[in-house]
Amino acid sequence: MLRPESLKLIAFDADDTLWVNEPNYVNVQQTLSELLAHYVDPKQMIDRFYVTQIKNLDLFGYGAKGFMLSMIETAIELTNGAVTGAEIQQIIDVSKSLLNYPIDVLDGVHEVLDTLSRRYDLMIITKGDLFDQESKIARSGVGNYFKHMEIVSEKDPAAYRRILQRYGIQPSEFLMIGNSVKSDILPVLEIGAWAVHVPFEITWGHELVPGERLAGRTFPRMTTIREVLTWLDLPESAC
Amino acid sequence: MLRPESLKLIAFDADDTLWVNEPNYVNVQQTLSELLAHYVDPKQMIDRFYVTQIKNLDLFGYGAKGFMLSMIETAIELTNGAVTGAEIQQIIDVSKSLLNYPIDVLDGVHEVLDTLSRRYDLMIITKGDLFDQESKIARSGVGNYFKHMEIVSEKDPAAYRRILQRYGIQPSEFLMIGNSVKSDILPVLEIGAWAVHVPFEITWGHELVPGERLAGRTFPRMTTIREVLTWLDLPESAC
Repeated sequence: MLRPESLKLIAFDADDTLWVNEPNYVNVQQTLSELLAHYVDPKQMIDRFYVTQIKNLDLFGYGAKGFMLSMIETAIELTNGAVTGAEIQQIIDVSKSLLNYPIDVLDGVHEVLDTLSRRYDLMIITKGDLFDQESKIARSGVGNYFKHMEIVSEKDPAAYRRILQRYGIQPSEFLMIGNSVKSDILPVLEIGAWAVHVPFEITWGHELVPGERLAGRTFPRMTTIREVLTWLDLPESAC
Repeated sequence: MLRPESLKLIAFDADDTLWVNEPNYVNVQQTLSELLAHYVDPKQMIDRFYVTQIKNLDLFGYGAKGFMLSMIETAIELTNGAVTGAEIQQIIDVSKSLLNYPIDVLDGVHEVLDTLSRRYDLMIITKGDLFDQESKIARSGVGNYFKHMEIVSEKDPAAYRRILQRYGIQPSEFLMIGNSVKSDILPVLEIGAWAVHVPFEITWGHELVPGERLAGRTFPRMTTIREVLTWLDLPESAC
């Protein structure tokens, strides 16, 4: 298998790569759809919420606050305005947990970061809400492994090119590790850099990639983040 | 008057320095408080909204989406939950204008940026919502004057230090221009860099600085942004 020889910078996605994220959103959706079950079938609620969320993406971007606003809009729409003020406050209260839940760092992450940070500069590249992502990094306790953090509004080839240019890094010297083929892998391969896929148990629908977009693209896929060390031929450090 | 001799990087605040911002928020607050006037006195509504907004700042950060959520919470609280779903949808619809209003670039900004960009690297440093600020920069039509853009969650001395370090700039080589004494001037003076105050007609309450914090601090204050050129002893370019 082809491996990078001259890496200088290794970047990690954050949500569902370093720590658990999507299940928190799924749980909140579930709780809220049950809260409103006396108005609307929960499955219909969740389906409609997804449509509203995507429709609002151009205006709100990614993140918990847009999630809350789209959920409120969905509840108003599907109940024809009958949802009460008290219920909307419950939607806000339940969703606020998305902005301060305890960060559950994924198995193996500490060891991998400890080993890699001894040899390479490490970076977090995450998309979404600046304030929320900075707060999650701070709460995670793994922020110190990273020399750089880049929070972007969209992970497209242009965003990766800008980051490499800013730090004076060639594509051949850059490796991205993440759970989203759409955001962490394909745009990175497109600019000629390295990417490793570490899938997470669930993926938000919007991040799914149709099979045809993968045609001709090959990239390493790991079962756990620890395998990155084996792939890079590095022994795990004791920590 | 003391003037910088060896500037390399000039940074501008964006909202109410390059373009009109705060009046849009004031107008939306006014519209929404009138919309709910059959429940609550508009002045009481605006006062309570400010308290809620500041209370939520630790969770939401700055920006339009936090504004919307705090406005919804205020409406629910002050109406004891009686506000209807349809009215909350109106709150959202009216507030969405904050995310796509046409950008009104302030008088003199184009000329000043044109002149300064011929001699210095220019940067935007703005706080708030990443997605919203990027969208405003794109809509403003002045983005091309800037070599760098930094969107931060808080403009404190640490944030300015990080930016200077990232670009390898000494404090004596850096000038910040902005309308907020709290965010654009005091933290910049604290790290030993240059700052010029260009006040805007109105300032959000949270950005106001008690007089005692200004004791011993002197900095140039311009009536219009064009005076920055005179202060830097630069002729205005024809454009």
